[in-house]
Amino acid sequence: MDVLQFSMIFVGIALAGLALTALIFAKVVSFKNTDVRSAHIARLIREGAMTFLFKEYAILVGVIAVAFALLSYVMHLAGGAAYAVGALSSMLAGYIGMKAATRANEATTIAARDRGERSAFLTALLGGSVMGFVVASLGLLGLGGIFFLCASHDPLEFVKILTCFGLGASSIALFARVGGGIYTKAADVGADLVGKVEMGIPEDDPRNPAVIADNVGDCVGDTAGMGADIFESYVGSVVGAMALGVTAFAGRLEYISLPIMLCAIGLIASCFGMLSSFIIRMKIRHLLHMATYIAIAVFVAGSYAYLSYMNMNMNLFGSIALGAISGLIIGAVTDYYTSGRPIRQLAETSKSGAGTNLIFGLSIGFESVVAPICAIAVIVFISHEYFGGLFGVSLAAVSMLATVGITMTIDGYGPIADNAGGISEMSGFGPEVRKITDHLDALGNMTAALGKGFAIGSAVFAALAIFAAYCEYSHITSLDLQDPLVITGLFIGATLPYLLSAFTMRAVGRAAWKMVIEVRRQFKEIPGLMEGKTEPDYSRCIGISTHAALVEMIVPGLITIAAPVFIKYIFGIHGKMALGGFLAGATVSGVLLALMMANAGGAWDNAKKFIEAGNFGGKGSDAHKAAVVGDTVGDPFKDTSGPSLNILIKLMSMISLLLAMI
Amino acid sequence: MDVLQFSMIFVGIALAGLALTALIFAKVVSFKNTDVRSAHIARLIREGAMTFLFKEYAILVGVIAVAFALLSYVMHLAGGAAYAVGALSSMLAGYIGMKAATRANEATTIAARDRGERSAFLTALLGGSVMGFVVASLGLLGLGGIFFLCASHDPLEFVKILTCFGLGASSIALFARVGGGIYTKAADVGADLVGKVEMGIPEDDPRNPAVIADNVGDCVGDTAGMGADIFESYVGSVVGAMALGVTAFAGRLEYISLPIMLCAIGLIASCFGMLSSFIIRMKIRHLLHMATYIAIAVFVAGSYAYLSYMNMNMNLFGSIALGAISGLIIGAVTDYYTSGRPIRQLAETSKSGAGTNLIFGLSIGFESVVAPICAIAVIVFISHEYFGGLFGVSLAAVSMLATVGITMTIDGYGPIADNAGGISEMSGFGPEVRKITDHLDALGNMTAALGKGFAIGSAVFAALAIFAAYCEYSHITSLDLQDPLVITGLFIGATLPYLLSAFTMRAVGRAAWKMVIEVRRQFKEIPGLMEGKTEPDYSRCIGISTHAALVEMIVPGLITIAAPVFIKYIFGIHGKMALGGFLAGATVSGVLLALMMANAGGAWDNAKKFIEAGNFGGKGSDAHKAAVVGDTVGDPFKDTSGPSLNILIKLMSMISLLLAMI
Repeated sequence: MDVLQFSMIFVGIALAGLALTALIFAKVVSFKNTDVRSAHIARLIREGAMTFLFKEYAILVGVIAVAFALLSYVMHLAGGAAYAVGALSSMLAGYIGMKAATRANEATTIAARDRGERSAFLTALLGGSVMGFVVASLGLLGLGGIFFLCASHDPLEFVKILTCFGLGASSIALFARVGGGIYTKAADVGADLVGKVEMGIPEDDPRNPAVIADNVGDCVGDTAGMGADIFESYVGSVVGAMALGVTAFAGRLEYISLPIMLCAIGLIASCFGMLSSFIIRMKIRHLLHMATYIAIAVFVAGSYAYLSYMNMNMNLFGSIALGAISGLIIGAVTDYYTSGRPIRQLAETSKSGAGTNLIFGLSIGFESVVAPICAIAVIVFISHEYFGGLFGVSLAAVSMLATVGITMTIDGYGPIADNAGGISEMSGFGPEVRKITDHLDALGNMTAALGKGFAIGSAVFAALAIFAAYCEYSHITSLDLQDPLVITGLFIGATLPYLLSAFTMRAVGRAAWKMVIEVRRQFKEIPGLMEGKTEPDYSRCIGISTHAALVEMIVPGLITIAAPVFIKYIFGIHGKMALGGFLAGATVSGVLLALMMANAGGAWDNAKKFIEAGNFGGKGSDAHKAAVVGDTVGDPFKDTSGPSLNILIKLMSMISLLLAMI
Repeated sequence: MDVLQFSMIFVGIALAGLALTALIFAKVVSFKNTDVRSAHIARLIREGAMTFLFKEYAILVGVIAVAFALLSYVMHLAGGAAYAVGALSSMLAGYIGMKAATRANEATTIAARDRGERSAFLTALLGGSVMGFVVASLGLLGLGGIFFLCASHDPLEFVKILTCFGLGASSIALFARVGGGIYTKAADVGADLVGKVEMGIPEDDPRNPAVIADNVGDCVGDTAGMGADIFESYVGSVVGAMALGVTAFAGRLEYISLPIMLCAIGLIASCFGMLSSFIIRMKIRHLLHMATYIAIAVFVAGSYAYLSYMNMNMNLFGSIALGAISGLIIGAVTDYYTSGRPIRQLAETSKSGAGTNLIFGLSIGFESVVAPICAIAVIVFISHEYFGGLFGVSLAAVSMLATVGITMTIDGYGPIADNAGGISEMSGFGPEVRKITDHLDALGNMTAALGKGFAIGSAVFAALAIFAAYCEYSHITSLDLQDPLVITGLFIGATLPYLLSAFTMRAVGRAAWKMVIEVRRQFKEIPGLMEGKTEPDYSRCIGISTHAALVEMIVPGLITIAAPVFIKYIFGIHGKMALGGFLAGATVSGVLLALMMANAGGAWDNAKKFIEAGNFGGKGSDAHKAAVVGDTVGDPFKDTSGPSLNILIKLMSMISLLLAMI
């Protein structure tokens, strides 16, 4: 096959995916809510989310303009254009996904009221699938388009353009993740500290001035932020793999295009997975797993068929299969540490106070990194040694991400279910409806932990693929750990995730503090608020979160972007060696910290919920108070600092790869 | 000069150091306490400490016997013997230092009562100097002795013997640090949770059944544990440097012996530093700093003179000077993060509860790693690039540790001052005496944070020196980060510190829980205890801490020892590459985690003390309660898990070096 034929397949499948997305999107937004109260609440959430998104995008357009000018200058116009397309694709995906999610939330609530659990579940899943499929389709379209335009030209030029495209996706992800993470946790912590702890009103109570901001935060952080994160991993792994493929298989198109082909197969496989949840009749808890398994099985079978049909080196299939299942392994471990036996123990240690809860929770987080990281390490080793070499490792990364359509759908489901619970509570739909939405929300929490594990795992694989490409294009023959320069870079790089975590943790603390003061003020100054006679001023709380997120994302963002450039040039001619060490250090330290934070945070959250379900004294007991403290620490861990680190390691690799080529 | 002449200098200075130690020791233990109550308390502490030490040593003798047999079998009798000498030296140093410390504590109390602050300060310092000088002298004696016996023989054989000696020191350090750390924090947390929080009685109240165990813990953890830790770094850095020197400067004795010579110069310099604190009249707060500065200045000048006199390559002096000041840099940063502006802010965030206190405390810990690690990285780079190459880097490690006599003296001062405060409180010496001991204790806390920073910094340098030697003796030409095997090792190695932290945190949690139950039982079941009419059953609490420490140190200990062996052999012929990556990963991840824990722990501790000093509501306020929770988490961070990681990274390097040679 020639470039044109390959391109037609890629672009064709991408367009088909977009058409499917458009259909689902149309269905989701066509929903008309006739219930006045819930429609009002949902509109507040939607407007809050869109306000944040537009303000964020206004800043990002500035970032894109600067980066476009810079890249066009140091490279050429095509580089700048590819960057802009990558960035705008990520933003577009975020916008569409968010638009759907903030419609699907009320549709889910109404479905729970009128048509029962299963229908509500499918409504939420459909809403999430918009984000899932728009990410997968837009990514494939961009990659396929670049392949069509550039694959016949100079290979180095091709890789450069690809990298610029990936960099566009990365830089949006950085701001979306950091900003979204700060937004959501400032609102959440602020709402909890005053509403739940000081005033003693329940979660999602409409009297709480920060409650809408809290619900907006779920969309902003878990939908838009996660979407941009996964989009970056998806594109990044393909860029890394193709950069390696171009040099390893010069001119052999079926190999060079393989990473994009895997994405195309994965998109089709995701449709099968999605379809299965509408056809198969089983407990909804198992449906989410089943959809993933089916998608992965179809993907693996499809890849096998493709490789055989094209008469390609079947060793590569081993790497692909390993990559596809590695997401499951990470998921299983995450599941154990965030909802298995350790949670029961953690809840029990809460009985002796916040101190022991925190010590034990941290120890769960520490322990939880061992199995997944060793699994990733072993998969990297086997994949390289017995299957496809370095290219094989990068294919494993791609194949882990190829079924992103379904995994992101499930991630997108979570905040919709969470929001639906909030809306039903605030609309006074009664305990029957709340029970359904609570159940859907609990499912969402489970998948959120899985999703975070997956996001981190995919970040490592993507970073490794880009790292390998960096070494290749820097013409580094040996990045020797005996070279003190490499060690120096390794150590400096390893501190970066700690620095970023310090910034983001503190940003959440500061923003939450402002929120606390505002919420306290409203309870004090607005007459009739506590009695439910007056509506609080939701918009001021939304404003605080929005402002904090936008202001606080700037410094960490700039540090992340500037650090690799600084390392490369401060060490002069040795720069490329130091930068290589730096990337390795940042990756290894970042992934450990990210995983620790995600799992400890998940564990604290679920231990609190376990107690709230009536164990060890239930709500209001001393154990519960201790568990709430743990959860307050876990919130920025799992939703702000941890996820930001995923971006850090990918973005710095991507920038370095670009630096290696200019 | 020939081997004999060098050896005479080394052994001579070592013996002089030991003679000085013996003099100080005799003076310290000759103290007769005529006050019945304080003598009783001091005896309880002394007996508790000695009981633990003997029980621990009984286990360690078993470990030594096994290791002796193993090493004699896989190598030869001399290797086993060197191991045993190294191990027994560490144990002897711990015994002597502890014996002196548990006498000096009561002497300090009485001096504070009868002769005022300055005299009490000098008494405590003299007590601490026994540990400082016995560590420095025994280390020098062992190294000098091996030099005398083996330096004329086969160089490889010489390095092997040296490594066995170092391994002996390392393995004792592991158990002393882990066991001691668990002991002290189980007692501390247990005593605080019931005594201070539940019963509302003050710190060091004789009615608290765990109070003696708490005081014993200070000796066991901060004196014996720290001593073994520093002894290991001291010996380890010399072993690493000499291993590199033997191959780099074959047959040139003045270079090969330089690391030991630096220790000898450092020992003399430490005497000057020690002397200065008895001669110079200034505020005692500044005396500790002054003593260190003088020792370092004398050391640097002495090294310069020696290098010139011997007509050696003066480039090496640059590395030596850099190493000597790097301890000061780490100390300054540690000081800022654990007693500077961040502490005030941390205390302030405690006003909004334990959650925000914890978030902010963690963010301080995260941020605090950046400056010292980057400083170390830059020192490594400069030292290699502009001064002495790889051998220069290892000399920087040695010179940071050469003045161990004075730094360990200051470390040893802390727990004595702390104990003196406890004894005066329990003996009812009144507020005047307590004010003096409180002041001495505050000084000790400051130096403890510095000491921890120094211990971690020295561990990195020592580990790097041994790591370089490992690569040299494994005949690794290039430990290439592009090799997936090295990356695999890097990732697996990086998880080890997390695993060890999980174990040690949980061990403290479990042991503290048992302590809480026992203390509660005694308050409930012993009539007249709360009224102060009956003495509690101190020995049961001591027994709990002792038992927990000895049992819980075994699994983490075995994991640390077994991991490098496992990695080396599981990967077959590639084992040495994987192990190289593994060591680099464990070192970089371990040092970051250790530093984060030490500084966050120090920050929480001091923020609590800052509030207790009357700020933000003082004792009993909500801010204070929140700060106590932070301190409870910080305790195992800074005194158990963090310090254990120092050992982890050194011991695994040492084992690997040995594996490379057999």
